Amino acid sequence: MKVLITGGAGFVGARLARALLARGTLAGQNLRALVLADQVTAPADLLADPRVQGRVSPLLAACEGLRSEAFDGVFHLASAVSGECEVDFDLGLRSNLDSTRALLDALRHRTESGAAPTRLVFSSSVAVYGPDPAVPMPAVVTDTTLPAPQTSYGTHKLICEHLVADYTRKGYIDGRAARLMTVAVRPGRPNGAASSFFSGIIREPLAGVESVCPVSPDVQHPVSSPALTVRGLIAVYEASREAFVGRTALNLPALNVSVQQMLDALLAVAGPRVRSLVRFERDERIAGIVANWPRAASAQRAAGLGLLPERHFEDIIRQYVADNAGNPQALKGMQS
Amino acid sequence: MKVLITGGAGFVGARLARALLARGTLAGQNLRALVLADQVTAPADLLADPRVQGRVSPLLAACEGLRSEAFDGVFHLASAVSGECEVDFDLGLRSNLDSTRALLDALRHRTESGAAPTRLVFSSSVAVYGPDPAVPMPAVVTDTTLPAPQTSYGTHKLICEHLVADYTRKGYIDGRAARLMTVAVRPGRPNGAASSFFSGIIREPLAGVESVCPVSPDVQHPVSSPALTVRGLIAVYEASREAFVGRTALNLPALNVSVQQMLDALLAVAGPRVRSLVRFERDERIAGIVANWPRAASAQRAAGLGLLPERHFEDIIRQYVADNAGNPQALKGMQS
Repeated sequence: MKVLITGGAGFVGARLARALLARGTLAGQNLRALVLADQVTAPADLLADPRVQGRVSPLLAACEGLRSEAFDGVFHLASAVSGECEVDFDLGLRSNLDSTRALLDALRHRTESGAAPTRLVFSSSVAVYGPDPAVPMPAVVTDTTLPAPQTSYGTHKLICEHLVADYTRKGYIDGRAARLMTVAVRPGRPNGAASSFFSGIIREPLAGVESVCPVSPDVQHPVSSPALTVRGLIAVYEASREAFVGRTALNLPALNVSVQQMLDALLAVAGPRVRSLVRFERDERIAGIVANWPRAASAQRAAGLGLLPERHFEDIIRQYVADNAGNPQALKGMQS
Repeated sequence: MKVLITGGAGFVGARLARALLARGTLAGQNLRALVLADQVTAPADLLADPRVQGRVSPLLAACEGLRSEAFDGVFHLASAVSGECEVDFDLGLRSNLDSTRALLDALRHRTESGAAPTRLVFSSSVAVYGPDPAVPMPAVVTDTTLPAPQTSYGTHKLICEHLVADYTRKGYIDGRAARLMTVAVRPGRPNGAASSFFSGIIREPLAGVESVCPVSPDVQHPVSSPALTVRGLIAVYEASREAFVGRTALNLPALNVSVQQMLDALLAVAGPRVRSLVRFERDERIAGIVANWPRAASAQRAAGLGLLPERHFEDIIRQYVADNAGNPQALKGMQS
């Protein structure tokens, strides 16, 4: 089979690619070719695999070509992040809305030409949820909480969920939408997302670098590890159409954890010296954005697919430590 | 002030135009110019008013020109109907999604050039509601029922609601979305909408013509008269931004009425001979579509704007009869 990952050079995309290549199969078929489409070059270890083909271009420009190329499956992860979309409205429309529409129309074109519907997993986001000022945010957002996005990013994710649902209803694709929780611990540098600090307050201290937490310790948020997020995307791909009971969207599992609990876990895993590298300095802009986010999420539909959340944030930190076993710089704080 | 009505030559659009011209003001401003944009020519009585300018073109093509034309207010009613969109997917995307996006971007362009945000009322629809097979349809759909559209028409209406909300949040427009109930009694001929019979079973007998009801008498549905629908659109336009409590969408008021109650009202208003012109002949395709529609809707947010539903379907029939006082052909059944 031939699979496309849009955003395939990104953090989640590359990790998904590694997982698929290691498995060698997806939904019972042999993975023969894996195309990683992104605006940047894919990591070298992926490009070294003979099954992998990297393609560097804006997704919107690439979609015309996809009309004449057969894929069995697509993971559509490419996206501009929330902070970027708030700063540049046109970027958000182009990257998160027009590109998805062009991708769906390319796949529809194939079906209308006689091909079987391509299976597609769309990475949506917990950002589809409010708060709707007219409807207080529930304590826990569920699969059936009324979405009321308050960012362009969340708006476009929700819109694309509905496009995926309608193209699926019409038989043009076999689409599914997985609402990703905030993925932590992300490697690398802070990005434009307002949620960036959820990774930063763990990643920087582990590397021996001071980190500033811009919100108070009682802020709580649904998070998921990179590994569990990737496992979720694959499970959503492999699930039968019937398992979705006529809906295409579901929440991926979340560990609902407070900043205090995250830092307690950091203390337990890495000790007091690492923990002491985090200090609190309120950033009103970020605190204001985060105050509007869900404090907890449930994922009943994902549980029906056998997907369960992590139980302790310590496990998530240990996963990050294990991932970086060969990268002393990333764990410098623990070794000093 | 200068106002644009897209779909201004259509049934609701023309009726809205007449109401605005008769009032002469909107939100406290004098109505100086009223542009009726549509794919067909506006009715002659409207074009005879010196304040009215009719424009005939596809909306999508007209939006480029709107970037350099100032409007104080827009009623965006133009739409392909549900039946058309199910038959022609591209028509639905173009007419109901791309055209709205182009209109919003034209208005955004003006704001970005320094103009005040244009006030816009978007006509959404009760078709945004399910049924979601995974979430049973509630007995009454409320302002906060989870939308789960099962037609392209409903999907595009919901998507545009979210675009309107996001463009409003960003300050590019002052947008509001009113979910129209099924408007009855519509004049003229049956159209492509599956809901067409809700008007047909009243309109045809009143004209002395036999009418076939394709669903059983116990089918119940939220309806609203043309006059109340127009009053709702104007009230939504005139409401303060604050009255929306941070949301842009609301249900317009509905009279929840069964086919049996509609026919009983027809008997009361027009007598047994007219009533006897309706016969039941089940159409499985239409019955199947209608079975998935809400049986009732509430409109709490609209009530907050002072908008209340009609109380008796007889009143709605009498409105139609009064509207057609000068049209003997339309009331031929009553006179024979």
